[in-house]
Amino acid sequence: MDKIARIDMGAAGGPKVTVGDLGAYAGLGGRAMTSIVISTEVHPLAHALGAENKLVIAPGMLSGTTGSMTGRLSVGCKSPLTGTIKESNAGGQAAQVLARLGYAAVILEGKPEGDDLYKIYISKDGIQVIVDNSLKLLNNYPVIEKLRGEYGDKVAYMSIGSAGERKLLAASIACTDPELRPTRHCGRGGVGAVMGAKRVKAIILDDAGMKMRPPKDPDKYRDANRAFVEGLRKHPVTGQGLPAYGTNVLTNVLNEAGGYPALNFKSGQFEGVAKICGEAQAELEIKRGGSATHGCHRGCVIQCSGIYNDKDGKYVSKQPEYETVWSHGGHCGIDDLDVIARLDYMDDNIGVDTIEMGVTIGVAMDAGLAAFGDAEAAIRLVEEVGNGTPLGRVLGCGAEITGKVFGVERVPVVKGQALSAYDPRAVQGMGVTYATGTMGADHTSGYAVATNILKIGGDIDPLKTEGQVELSRNLQIATAALDSTGMCLFVAMALMDQPETFQAMFDMLGSFHGTSMTGEDFVALGKKVLSAERDFNTRAGFTKAHDRLPRFFYTEQLAPHNIAFMVKDEELDEVFNW
Amino acid sequence: MDKIARIDMGAAGGPKVTVGDLGAYAGLGGRAMTSIVISTEVHPLAHALGAENKLVIAPGMLSGTTGSMTGRLSVGCKSPLTGTIKESNAGGQAAQVLARLGYAAVILEGKPEGDDLYKIYISKDGIQVIVDNSLKLLNNYPVIEKLRGEYGDKVAYMSIGSAGERKLLAASIACTDPELRPTRHCGRGGVGAVMGAKRVKAIILDDAGMKMRPPKDPDKYRDANRAFVEGLRKHPVTGQGLPAYGTNVLTNVLNEAGGYPALNFKSGQFEGVAKICGEAQAELEIKRGGSATHGCHRGCVIQCSGIYNDKDGKYVSKQPEYETVWSHGGHCGIDDLDVIARLDYMDDNIGVDTIEMGVTIGVAMDAGLAAFGDAEAAIRLVEEVGNGTPLGRVLGCGAEITGKVFGVERVPVVKGQALSAYDPRAVQGMGVTYATGTMGADHTSGYAVATNILKIGGDIDPLKTEGQVELSRNLQIATAALDSTGMCLFVAMALMDQPETFQAMFDMLGSFHGTSMTGEDFVALGKKVLSAERDFNTRAGFTKAHDRLPRFFYTEQLAPHNIAFMVKDEELDEVFNW
Repeated sequence: MDKIARIDMGAAGGPKVTVGDLGAYAGLGGRAMTSIVISTEVHPLAHALGAENKLVIAPGMLSGTTGSMTGRLSVGCKSPLTGTIKESNAGGQAAQVLARLGYAAVILEGKPEGDDLYKIYISKDGIQVIVDNSLKLLNNYPVIEKLRGEYGDKVAYMSIGSAGERKLLAASIACTDPELRPTRHCGRGGVGAVMGAKRVKAIILDDAGMKMRPPKDPDKYRDANRAFVEGLRKHPVTGQGLPAYGTNVLTNVLNEAGGYPALNFKSGQFEGVAKICGEAQAELEIKRGGSATHGCHRGCVIQCSGIYNDKDGKYVSKQPEYETVWSHGGHCGIDDLDVIARLDYMDDNIGVDTIEMGVTIGVAMDAGLAAFGDAEAAIRLVEEVGNGTPLGRVLGCGAEITGKVFGVERVPVVKGQALSAYDPRAVQGMGVTYATGTMGADHTSGYAVATNILKIGGDIDPLKTEGQVELSRNLQIATAALDSTGMCLFVAMALMDQPETFQAMFDMLGSFHGTSMTGEDFVALGKKVLSAERDFNTRAGFTKAHDRLPRFFYTEQLAPHNIAFMVKDEELDEVFNW
Repeated sequence: MDKIARIDMGAAGGPKVTVGDLGAYAGLGGRAMTSIVISTEVHPLAHALGAENKLVIAPGMLSGTTGSMTGRLSVGCKSPLTGTIKESNAGGQAAQVLARLGYAAVILEGKPEGDDLYKIYISKDGIQVIVDNSLKLLNNYPVIEKLRGEYGDKVAYMSIGSAGERKLLAASIACTDPELRPTRHCGRGGVGAVMGAKRVKAIILDDAGMKMRPPKDPDKYRDANRAFVEGLRKHPVTGQGLPAYGTNVLTNVLNEAGGYPALNFKSGQFEGVAKICGEAQAELEIKRGGSATHGCHRGCVIQCSGIYNDKDGKYVSKQPEYETVWSHGGHCGIDDLDVIARLDYMDDNIGVDTIEMGVTIGVAMDAGLAAFGDAEAAIRLVEEVGNGTPLGRVLGCGAEITGKVFGVERVPVVKGQALSAYDPRAVQGMGVTYATGTMGADHTSGYAVATNILKIGGDIDPLKTEGQVELSRNLQIATAALDSTGMCLFVAMALMDQPETFQAMFDMLGSFHGTSMTGEDFVALGKKVLSAERDFNTRAGFTKAHDRLPRFFYTEQLAPHNIAFMVKDEELDEVFNW
C-alpha cells in the first residue's frame, strides 16, 4: 500500500490513470484516507455529482494482511444525499485484494462527456479503464454474472446497479463476498450515485501474483492477531450472539427495550417481532438449507452473515441485517421474513441502501402511497426504483426527498439521511449520535446502543440524558479510528469490555507498521479524522442547527415509555468539544 | 389596522379565531410585519408544513388608503422550498380590502387533523372559518368562479390551487385582480403549500361597510400622493415603458446586454427574442382585443399588466410578466407567445410560481425529459403538475428537487429557489443579490438590474465587480423597507432617479401616520427587517456558505461576454456588514 492511483474520468481524449506515491497521505487507511483526501481536495460547495467531486476508495490500514477482521473497504466523497463529507464502508473481498495490489487509495476524479459506461480492471500489471456499454442499466447480480464470464472467480468485484447509474441519491456500491455475490454494500450517503456520475459501472480487482502484505514484525503480529481472535471468540456478542443469529439478534432486544421504531417511528414496539427476529430467521435459514453463520470476507471469525433461501431451498438473498429487517419490516408494518429477504435482494440488486430504502417506503406509506403492512405494495414500490420511473426515482432518492415530494411532515432524517432501527427517544445516546454525526443519521458512527442497551463498555440508562454526550463523543472518536484500520466495527463489542483485546489490536497495528500504537494514538487518530470531516462540513455550510433531530422527536412522546428526546441543544453542542 | 387576527386551525374542536391588539407589532406592515412575526414566533427548525409554522398575511403600511400604488399584500412563513424565512408579496385587491377591514395581520396557526378543507370569510362582522369540501382539488379559476356565486363580485379573494392543497413546494397563493381573475400571486417560496398544509383553500375579504383608512393629516397626504403620482408619470420607466409594454419590455434589453439566460443558463442571448419580447407582445395583445395596459389593483398609475387573448379574441391569461416569458420562453428554448401565455394561465390556475415552474421545466429538459424548444412537451409537463402525478409532484416541488431526482448538475438555484431572468455572470450585481438574499435567489429583493443595465440610480458596469456589493446592499435595505409600505416595487424606478419623488413617498408615510419619515428612518426600517430575517436564517442553520451561487456560474463562461461570476466570497460576506 505504497501508492495512490488517480483516474481522471474526464480527461481530454478519455480516462487517464496516474499512479503516484502517498505523499502527505502516507500512513492513512480506510476512513482516515477517504475523509482527509476529500476534505483536502474537494471544494466543499462542489456539486456532488459534478466533475469537482472525487470518489476515494481505500482499504484499511491492516487490510490485505493475515490479520483477522481486516476486510473493510472505505469509500468516500461529498455525499449527494447529505451534502456532507461521506465515508461508507463495506465488507466483502475488495479491501483485501486492493490492499494486496498495493493501492492505499484509488481516486476517481472528473466526469466524462457522453454516455459511455466504463469498467476498471486493476491487476498486478496496472490499471485499465475500458468502455463497456453492454453493462448499461444492468443490476448488480447480472453485472457480476456477466463479469465473471470474463474475469473469472478469483477476483473481487465492485459495482453499481441501475440506481447508481441513474444517480439516485440512495444508490450504493456493491462489493462481492467470497462466493462472489454482490451483497456487501457501501450503502449510505449515495456513494453509488457518485460512481454513476463518473460513469464507472464496475471495478475488477485481481490480485493474482500478489502476496499478503508483510508485517514489519511478523512474530509479534501473529501473536497479537491470535490474542485478538481469542478475545473475539470469548466475548458473548462476537463469540456467540452474532455468529448464531447475526445482527438480527437485536430485534427482540430493542423491542423489549421499547426502542424498536415501528410504523415510521410511531411506537417503540412492533407486534410482529416474533416472526422476524434473529432467532426465527436463523431457524428458518438452517431449516431451508441456507446458513445462519457466514463470513462476508475471508479472515472473519465472527461470521455474522448468513444465507437466506426460499422454501424450496433456493437462494433468495444474503441474511438480511437487523437494520434491513427493521426498515422493510417493523418500520413498514411488515412481519414476513420472505418478503423482507426478497426486498433485501432487490435493494442489493438495484443497488440502493437497504436502510434508506426501507425508511423511504415507510415515509411513502405515511404519505398514503400504500398501507402499513402491505407487503405487495412495498415490493411494487421498490420495483419502481428498479424501473427508474418518476416515482421510483423519487423513492430512490431517499426519505427526505420523498417526504418533500409527497408533503410528509414526519420524516426521520438528519442532514438528509434516514435514521435506522433505534428510536432516539428510547435510546437517547443513539439520538446524540444521529444528531451530531458528521455524515447524517448513522447508527454505526457512534453506536451508543452498546452501552445504553447491551450494557457493553458500561451501563448508561437509555431513557436519561446523563452521560449520553460523553458516550457518543467517545464512541464517535473510537469509531472514526476503527473505520480507518480496516477492522469490522463489530470487534468493538469485545474491545469495549476487554482491555486485553483492545491492546491486542493496538499490538497488531504497531507490529504491522513497525511503529507503536497506544490508546492515546488511537484517540488522536479518531479526532484527526473527525476534525477533517467537521472542517469540510463547516465549509459546506453545516452548523449546530443541523446537529438536531427532526422536530417530531422533541414534540411527540414514544410508547411504551412515553418519552421524547430530551438531550438539550447546548449538550449536543458539546459533543465535539474535547 | 389596529388589530391582529390569529386563526388556530389546529384547535381542539375546530378552528378558533382570536382577535387582539397589535402589541409589540404596532406600526409594522407588509414584510416588516410578516418577517418580524415569523422571526419572533416560529421555531427556526420547525417543519415548514407542520403545526409549528405560521402563515402571516399582512397589508402594507399604506394599504387601504387613497394613496396610489399601495396595494401589495405580504405573506410570510418559514418557506418549505428554501427553509429560510419567507415573504412573498402580490398585487391584486386583497391588501386594500384587508387593510380597510382593520387587520394589520391575519395569522394562520396550527394544523387541523383530518381531511376537511376550509374557507375563511372576513367581513366587518368578524371572521368565519367554514368547512367547504366542495372546493377540494379545484384550481384557482374554478375556485373563484364557485366562490363568486356565493360571495359575489364586490369582495377580494385569496386562494390556492391543487398545487397548494398537495403541498407542492412551488405552490403560490393567488389574489384576485379588480376583475376577479386569480392572476396576482404570492409566488415564491412555496407559501401556497403552507396554506395548504393548514387546509385553508380560500380567504374571502369583504369590506362592505368599511371606509378608506383616514390619514392623520389628510391635506398633506393628498398633496404628497399627488406629487408622488406626478413623479411616477414623468419617469420614462414608470410613465412610459411599463405602461406601454409591461415588464416584458426587458426581454430585448437583457438580450442586448447578453444577460438573458437562454436554455437553462447556457447562453446570455436567445435567438427567438424578437417573437416573445414586450413590443411584440403588446402589439399582439392590442390586435387581438386584449390590452397592453392594465392595473392589477385599483389605485395603480403604472398599469404594467395587460390582457392576453387568443387569435379569436378569447381570454387566455393576464399579460405574462417578463420573468414568466423568460422562464417558459427563452429558458426552455420556446419562442411562441401563445404557448407561453397558456403556460402562464396553467401556472396561475394550478397555483404554482411561474418562475420556479419555468426554470424547473428547463432543468427537466436538461435531464432529457423533453427537448429544449418542445412546446407541447412543456405543456404536458405542467399538466402533470396539475394532475398531481408523481412526476408532476416532483416538478411542482421546483428546480432543486427536480435536479436531485433526475440527477442534473446544472441547477440554477440559491437556497433551493430558482434564479430568474437575469444571468448573474452578465449582471454581476444581480448575482450578489441572488447569492446573499435572505430568501433564496430572488431578483426583486435587490434589483441590481436597475443600475447595472437600466442605468437607474447610477451606472455600475454589469460586467465588473466594482460597486456591486454596495449596490446590492443598498437595494436590499431599501426593498425590505419598501416591501413593508404596501407600495409596488416598481415605484423604485422613479424613486432612485428623482429625490423629490422619494421625498413625496416619505411625506405620504409621515402624514398618514402622523409621524415623521426620513431617509434615515426608511433605511433603519429596511435594516430592521433584514436583521430579523437574517437572525431567523442563522438560527435555521444558514451560513455564508449558503450565500453563494451554484458552482457552474463560477466555472462556466457565459457567451457572448465569455465571463464567469467574479464577485469574491469575501466580498459577498460584506453585504450585510453595514
